[in-house]
Amino acid sequence: MQNDCGEITVSPIGVIRSSILDPQEAPKQGNESAVRGELILDERYREGLAGIEEGAQIVILYWMHLAGRDILQVHPRGDRNRPMRGVFSTRSPDRPNPIALETVEVVRVRGTVIEVVGLDAVDGTPLLDIKCVA
Amino acid sequence: MQNDCGEITVSPIGVIRSSILDPQEAPKQGNESAVRGELILDERYREGLAGIEEGAQIVILYWMHLAGRDILQVHPRGDRNRPMRGVFSTRSPDRPNPIALETVEVVRVRGTVIEVVGLDAVDGTPLLDIKCVA
Repeated sequence: MQNDCGEITVSPIGVIRSSILDPQEAPKQGNESAVRGELILDERYREGLAGIEEGAQIVILYWMHLAGRDILQVHPRGDRNRPMRGVFSTRSPDRPNPIALETVEVVRVRGTVIEVVGLDAVDGTPLLDIKCVA
Repeated sequence: MQNDCGEITVSPIGVIRSSILDPQEAPKQGNESAVRGELILDERYREGLAGIEEGAQIVILYWMHLAGRDILQVHPRGDRNRPMRGVFSTRSPDRPNPIALETVEVVRVRGTVIEVVGLDAVDGTPLLDIKCVA
């Protein structure tokens, strides 16, 4: 789980399908999004979905595979008129471990496919986790 | 970043120091916690902290290294009187990728050490990310 270099291995539980093909199109924050899409879980995780209901809000964690992991400072929201800040005080996708968290609404559950609305993930994004809202 | 098995490697950005030594002592949800502790960042990520201010709420992501990754169903909140549910519809630490998210308050920033309150992480937990509240 954690190797000699202190690294941790995560295995995506599935993939996100959305209409966003280019990260430039993605809303800057999930709560500005009305994008629909699907969370397609690997069949081996089917049991873990029991209890996810239509209409519920869920939290998803995903891996922003297009992000820059070597970037430590950014202009907030990509606005060059705003002074640079450390990535840890922003929601920039660029950061050492580019894990996004977002709250989406469940539209429908069909087997291991969850239709959701409120996405800002690019199509093909690896899905890491799903939780209920705290 | 993603190997042939589809696995992703994350490198902790630091470690969490808290007074919780045993997961059984941890509050079941972060918002029930008044536990103080420290986020100790690796020196190489210092630049990323610029802009984190005392009194601010921040979101932390961490790796629940003591969790069971093969568990797909649990009794919610560990209550055996409640029926089993899929881990993805709960906040159980046990799940395929045991990444926790929690909102904590910054008490003080000293170099690469952030004192926080509101933790429910066990002492020694690997820290993966810090974000501002959306």
